[in-house]
Amino acid sequence: MTKIKIKTELERILPKKNILSAIEECYVYSQDGTNGLDSPKLPDVIVFPETIEEVQSIMKFANAHKVPVIARGAGTNLVGACIPMRGGIVINFTKMNKIIDINKTNMTAKVQPGVIVGELQNRVSEQGLFFPPDPSNLKVSTIGGAIAQSAGGPKTFKYGTTKDYILALKVVLADGTILECGTNTIKNATGYHLEQLFIGSEGTLGIVVEATLKLIPKPESTKVVMAYFDDIDSATASVTNMIDSNIYPSTIDFMNNNTLKTVEKFYPAGLLTDKEAALIIEIDGFESSFDTQISRLKNVLITTGASNIVISQTKEEQEKIWTARRASFAATAKLKPDVVTNDVIVPRENISALVKGINSICEKYGLIICIVGHIGDGNIHPQIALDLNNKEEVRAYENAKKELYDLTLNLGGTLSAEHGIGLDKKAFLANAIPAETLDYMKKMKMVFDPNNILNPEKIFDI
Amino acid sequence: MTKIKIKTELERILPKKNILSAIEECYVYSQDGTNGLDSPKLPDVIVFPETIEEVQSIMKFANAHKVPVIARGAGTNLVGACIPMRGGIVINFTKMNKIIDINKTNMTAKVQPGVIVGELQNRVSEQGLFFPPDPSNLKVSTIGGAIAQSAGGPKTFKYGTTKDYILALKVVLADGTILECGTNTIKNATGYHLEQLFIGSEGTLGIVVEATLKLIPKPESTKVVMAYFDDIDSATASVTNMIDSNIYPSTIDFMNNNTLKTVEKFYPAGLLTDKEAALIIEIDGFESSFDTQISRLKNVLITTGASNIVISQTKEEQEKIWTARRASFAATAKLKPDVVTNDVIVPRENISALVKGINSICEKYGLIICIVGHIGDGNIHPQIALDLNNKEEVRAYENAKKELYDLTLNLGGTLSAEHGIGLDKKAFLANAIPAETLDYMKKMKMVFDPNNILNPEKIFDI
Repeated sequence: MTKIKIKTELERILPKKNILSAIEECYVYSQDGTNGLDSPKLPDVIVFPETIEEVQSIMKFANAHKVPVIARGAGTNLVGACIPMRGGIVINFTKMNKIIDINKTNMTAKVQPGVIVGELQNRVSEQGLFFPPDPSNLKVSTIGGAIAQSAGGPKTFKYGTTKDYILALKVVLADGTILECGTNTIKNATGYHLEQLFIGSEGTLGIVVEATLKLIPKPESTKVVMAYFDDIDSATASVTNMIDSNIYPSTIDFMNNNTLKTVEKFYPAGLLTDKEAALIIEIDGFESSFDTQISRLKNVLITTGASNIVISQTKEEQEKIWTARRASFAATAKLKPDVVTNDVIVPRENISALVKGINSICEKYGLIICIVGHIGDGNIHPQIALDLNNKEEVRAYENAKKELYDLTLNLGGTLSAEHGIGLDKKAFLANAIPAETLDYMKKMKMVFDPNNILNPEKIFDI
Repeated sequence: MTKIKIKTELERILPKKNILSAIEECYVYSQDGTNGLDSPKLPDVIVFPETIEEVQSIMKFANAHKVPVIARGAGTNLVGACIPMRGGIVINFTKMNKIIDINKTNMTAKVQPGVIVGELQNRVSEQGLFFPPDPSNLKVSTIGGAIAQSAGGPKTFKYGTTKDYILALKVVLADGTILECGTNTIKNATGYHLEQLFIGSEGTLGIVVEATLKLIPKPESTKVVMAYFDDIDSATASVTNMIDSNIYPSTIDFMNNNTLKTVEKFYPAGLLTDKEAALIIEIDGFESSFDTQISRLKNVLITTGASNIVISQTKEEQEKIWTARRASFAATAKLKPDVVTNDVIVPRENISALVKGINSICEKYGLIICIVGHIGDGNIHPQIALDLNNKEEVRAYENAKKELYDLTLNLGGTLSAEHGIGLDKKAFLANAIPAETLDYMKKMKMVFDPNNILNPEKIFDI
């Protein structure tokens, strides 16, 4: 169907102010947060629905005419999941961004997909509640995107990921059917858990238009400890020793030597740049338990060979450490014209081998790398600085990426922990998932979207 | 296919010692933990596979000849989920009961389906780890059953249910295909979460033959507080006030007046039988936080109107309280020849209305009821003592049950929190789940089990 015809049809469904189709707008929506993809793929039309009924009408029209539909939150994803590969309609959820309800007694929230994760966290926090998933872009990224990509964040170690906080979803299917799955209750053994199928499905099975979230009581307080190590093995060993000592931090994050140096160069924060690795450990709970937790933690860290330990004494000191950690991507970006990141995960016992392997691979290909990650989860984000206009560097990066995935899979891990597969990792999916399993994933796709109009060409081809 | 032919074919797959078919054995396996079901449905053969390959061969044979297959753990379920409605093969997993691996560094366990939940908890506990799902029958019930029925338990309030602890499943499908879904890592955004589809599917989509479980560090200590109230509203209000006070108990359980009286009558434990309601609150975490937690908790309980508060000072006192709570089912069973239980859940704000409504319904129908439940979750287990040979009482119970489900659904709740639907609640499922959602659940069934041989007639008919 032609762009002009799609637009004309959509004008019957939505007010004109909620439809974009100018070429410059289409260029904006041809991209997402992913660097290093091929030439832009332009959508035909971008729409901003304000109601579920509008989404339903859009889908009925799109399905009848086999027009592709790509749901989009803030477009921060890093695997090309929002790229309109075959043109069509981008549904931008900016105008469906209401927190419909926060129910303190039930400890639940009902939200529209365009709600910003950080905004939700702040709002529930005012009521003494806590929504733990905390992707690093939470100040802009949306809950719809977090559901689509199965987002995690540093706090996953203790609190789990988005999937652990979804009680119910309202989903518009490819044919416009509204599917209500899950319940408003915090337990449910009433039929199959269909809602879980949509989490991490990257908009390929249906379009989430409302979510009921589980909240938990907000921990009384938090404290951040930064520990430096002279070698990677000691840093990773300390994680196991923490568990041995009955400590359960909310976060165990990691920065390697080059990350420490790079952050310190561009965003000075007093980091020790001569250390091989640093762990950022956040503990939480009752303040009266902090003496116990800190003393045990210190003991573990010293025993495991930490050469320097910094304990935040104030909220400001705590924030300073986190700001330095979060600055790592921006800092890496300053080393070269571009930066690409990745998201691999291995069982915790293999994290040291993964980090060392990544260093070797990047050394082999002459790539500049800053390694950060949620080491408590076994989840590493290698951030590689490069010039995407330099064909040789791009080729080196592509080769390195292949080796990175082989390494990860050989270490018993998988391709993505919290970013998704999208376009970027699609070619490697068959290495990570058995053929039968992939086959049944495709069967799911055929059940929910037989015309393949929902975010086509993502995760796998059918 | 005739019983004798099924048996002959199975003897090609399994050693004879692992096959039962005598009539008296078939009677044993015609039942599960459910009381009050219709006349027994006998299986043709019961098998005890020892390997995944055997299960695979059984399924290939069964699928080729459309012989029904019912997977069975300890058979403790309470909704008739293990009843062989159309005869066929019962797969008893008693002989696939190995804990394959407990990996402390990864905080994971790999288990066969026949592993007993309590045994797993003990084994991981020895390593300082914790597997929270704690159905009340955990001393006998299996992890395969917990996965099939989406089991919870008192600790769900803080720690979630079985679904939150499944990282990967190995499933034998109806046609013998082995489906490996999920990963060994604690996060995963690599394709659809197929593993979640099998949790709570009551053996209707596939047969779980191996599970990789997420474990967490074991809390340092626990303490139990019992609070008595003179009215239900105060008891339920205190739950909200706990959240307000930044306390996050691991458990908030409930017993009503008749439960207190009945337990005290048959298993004296010093309970106060003149109180309208009792809460059993377990806190956990660092001992150094217990003064804070207890003093806040006491403050909340007193402010909300608790008329008596008992704080366990020793492990023995703690165990005594839990023993009294767990004795409630056995105690109720002594009031009449039989006892039936149920499992409904509402949003927490409606728990008081649910408890009062249940009392009114039972009064209307002259039924003797002891109410217990995981009140923190909004989950109530009404235990009704009756004589199942008394047709009038059975009719009264059936009517009461209908009203109970209507009440639950009107209060925004659902039919089952942690027991499942099975046979017992099948007739009511369409009241709880929208037609479109039920339709897609049936589509899932058709994808995974097109011949409808896996536990037929359970959850819904197709």
